[in-house]
Amino acid sequence: MVLKLDRNDKKPLYLQIKAQLADLIETGILPAESRLPATREFSECLGVSRNTVVLAYQELEIGGLMTSRVGKGAFVNKCLPRREKYPEGILKPKMHYEGLFSTGWMRSSASLLPSLEQISDAEGDPDTISLASALPDRDLFPLGEFKDCLNSAMRRYGADLLTYGPPAGFGALLEYLPSFLAKRSIVCRSDELMIVSGIQQGLSLLGKLFIDPGDTVILENLTYPGALRMFRSLQANCIGIALDAEGIRVDILENVLKRKNVKMIYTIPTFHNPTGTILSIERRKAMVELCRKHQVIIVEDDYAHELGFEGKEPLPLKAWDDCDGIIYLGSFSEILFPGIRLSFILAPRRILEKLIIIKQSSDLYTNRILQGALLEFCRKGFLAKHLKRKRLVYRKRRDALLEALGRYFKEDFTWQKPSGGLFQWVDLPANIDALNFLMEARERKVVFAPDRIFSVEERERGGFRLGFANVQEEKIDRAVKILGEVLKEMLIK
Amino acid sequence: MVLKLDRNDKKPLYLQIKAQLADLIETGILPAESRLPATREFSECLGVSRNTVVLAYQELEIGGLMTSRVGKGAFVNKCLPRREKYPEGILKPKMHYEGLFSTGWMRSSASLLPSLEQISDAEGDPDTISLASALPDRDLFPLGEFKDCLNSAMRRYGADLLTYGPPAGFGALLEYLPSFLAKRSIVCRSDELMIVSGIQQGLSLLGKLFIDPGDTVILENLTYPGALRMFRSLQANCIGIALDAEGIRVDILENVLKRKNVKMIYTIPTFHNPTGTILSIERRKAMVELCRKHQVIIVEDDYAHELGFEGKEPLPLKAWDDCDGIIYLGSFSEILFPGIRLSFILAPRRILEKLIIIKQSSDLYTNRILQGALLEFCRKGFLAKHLKRKRLVYRKRRDALLEALGRYFKEDFTWQKPSGGLFQWVDLPANIDALNFLMEARERKVVFAPDRIFSVEERERGGFRLGFANVQEEKIDRAVKILGEVLKEMLIK
Repeated sequence: MVLKLDRNDKKPLYLQIKAQLADLIETGILPAESRLPATREFSECLGVSRNTVVLAYQELEIGGLMTSRVGKGAFVNKCLPRREKYPEGILKPKMHYEGLFSTGWMRSSASLLPSLEQISDAEGDPDTISLASALPDRDLFPLGEFKDCLNSAMRRYGADLLTYGPPAGFGALLEYLPSFLAKRSIVCRSDELMIVSGIQQGLSLLGKLFIDPGDTVILENLTYPGALRMFRSLQANCIGIALDAEGIRVDILENVLKRKNVKMIYTIPTFHNPTGTILSIERRKAMVELCRKHQVIIVEDDYAHELGFEGKEPLPLKAWDDCDGIIYLGSFSEILFPGIRLSFILAPRRILEKLIIIKQSSDLYTNRILQGALLEFCRKGFLAKHLKRKRLVYRKRRDALLEALGRYFKEDFTWQKPSGGLFQWVDLPANIDALNFLMEARERKVVFAPDRIFSVEERERGGFRLGFANVQEEKIDRAVKILGEVLKEMLIK
Repeated sequence: MVLKLDRNDKKPLYLQIKAQLADLIETGILPAESRLPATREFSECLGVSRNTVVLAYQELEIGGLMTSRVGKGAFVNKCLPRREKYPEGILKPKMHYEGLFSTGWMRSSASLLPSLEQISDAEGDPDTISLASALPDRDLFPLGEFKDCLNSAMRRYGADLLTYGPPAGFGALLEYLPSFLAKRSIVCRSDELMIVSGIQQGLSLLGKLFIDPGDTVILENLTYPGALRMFRSLQANCIGIALDAEGIRVDILENVLKRKNVKMIYTIPTFHNPTGTILSIERRKAMVELCRKHQVIIVEDDYAHELGFEGKEPLPLKAWDDCDGIIYLGSFSEILFPGIRLSFILAPRRILEKLIIIKQSSDLYTNRILQGALLEFCRKGFLAKHLKRKRLVYRKRRDALLEALGRYFKEDFTWQKPSGGLFQWVDLPANIDALNFLMEARERKVVFAPDRIFSVEERERGGFRLGFANVQEEKIDRAVKILGEVLKEMLIK
């Protein structure tokens, strides 16, 4: 085989050899599984050093065109790599996907919210203090104990964890959950529960079951972006209701329910994301009544129930639900760690049956290995122990944040003290835009989550969210000091 | 507190006590957190044995109404259990969900296929030999090795496996997959890959991205029920194309593509489920050409690639894809075990980006713990070793099945020899209905999967699927003998 090599070309010889051989392989002239010449003979034939040929062959192997077998030689792979061009510059037409996307995708992608990642973008820079995210503190992860539970689950349940399972979830875990929920003052049966791969999947299933394009969904006017994104992807008409220190304004909610035909209310009554508020008991009872009276479904997201610092966790809405109108979502992402990807839906049996069918169509069932490990973790008392530690650490950090706010922020700004959870919300006066504030703060190496990530409608309540769970006290103080300075400068202008 | 006990009642005293106390608790007469009488005093007061009271209290505790604290006493829980009725028989109106379900749900639930579970229902009876399912043999699960990999993954990656991750998947696994796919003769980059929680989720994401109600989707006329279910749930117009010994009839496919505006083709070219056929090389090349010519998306489900017994695995369609028109699905469910819930999509970058967004909206990301363990399992060579063993065992079982068919089935029946995979299809003559056959066979303690579970349209190719992967040779022989007898009787009638 003779190749055309140009020693005057800028391109090194070994790359010229590689390119020409690649060409011969890709056009089928050197067929699949044919043997390439031995390096010594080939180098003599081409008038180059043996090493040049060896380098060329290595390039071909890395590129997936050839495989070298020790003692046997170099063989052209069976693969037929895709090519942009064919010899003589012939372009083979590509697949054109334009016009093939679903209407649902076209509409939903048009309304994509800016994401936390896009706006806060703190990942890359280790010097930036991020108060932006809900990321938990890795140092608190119970690595060793969880590993033990993985092992004990494998020992206890064995192959049962590795095979197919019913879509509702791992039976033993479903049997356990009612006693777990009893501590939240919720009485239920295991056949009213199903496991989902995170609250996001729970919301996604509920969306598929209930939401048609144009359906009206009510949310707090600042809310968990993942939920808003999901409802928008289904082209729901999202209405945001104002919050105050006691949570969602139930009086306003009632007015809207009278005026509009509302399909569903999505609410985070405890440690609201992003404001950290807790819905008062009176308003909880009132919401349950509204649910019954107006026949509107309430989806309660109780993602952080046990993360209260003051001792008395408020009863979930679900504990007052005597009309089966509340669909309850619980999660182990924040109370344990996000990577477990395990949450659950509690719903009346006749609704749960349908959700289970949709779940099966979505991804058959959630893996049982981690469900088994989670069960072990709960039953051995590790979760209770872990929560105790977490609450202690988070409480200290919340206190540090409040102290820093008091020290560095002027009276122009208002905030409530969160009694638990992960977030602190700070209101901004009308003349300061949270996004501008973030841009300035980012220059000074501090980031947070601005209002617009959470806003259901434009011109919502101005402010920003500070996550304290993942940041040490000293950094919290430093960050808030910087934020205070930036705000001071912005107020002067 | 005095209760009304009737010693003549059939209901045991402790249950009467429990019921009346439950009533008092649920109606709030015994308020939350109030202390119940001590068992000794209460038993004396009621004139029953102390043990009777203890039993009643245990029942209340199990039912979540009361908590007993050692050394302190028994206290009514804070919970407010839901009740069907209030005192004096007042019914509080329930939530009426009728009319609240989405149009999508209403339409898709109307066309639910009978499921394998519903039809074959072999779970309950240990004496029934099931050749119905695709369930793998638990005895082959590499439990010990996988447990080691869970541990080594936790050690190697630690907290990184437990925290949030990018929706596309665990980076190190995505980096590894191109070399895994190179062995399948597919050349790709890690940024063209994403991890999904099973092929079902992959299909679900593709459905959301591409399928509008009324869109035409082509499938083999017998196909994987999960895929059919997913397309139907999106109200796609599903067309089934006939299969023969070499796979889908590409000539018929071509005609349909000329006549109709087809959005997508879903195909299982290797170890087709349910027929076990392999699409010939000529037809593979032809399909890729049709894909380009008609600008129709091909979704290739290559769920069992390495399960070939004859040595040479056929190249996936994707290996010939030079127009970016083939979206490739791979899975570890069959080559490793189903409970891993890990599969992947390989698609052109501009398509993958959109799928990643939909994935994020569906369930944020797939858990990284099992991704880490899978990576360890592959890298340590356990997968290759496991596959070797699996192929050996499956091959023996396939041989046993073929032998049994030859021995017990008359010439009226035809079947092909599958060169790998999990399934054997047997055609039935027109005068035997597969479902009737199944009913008869079930009486004789043998079940299999009848055609209608897999059929895209009515009056498809009559036959049934026998899964051999999970059944030992002796049972296979026994089962086929019985099936042969049943068929003989049916033919005589």
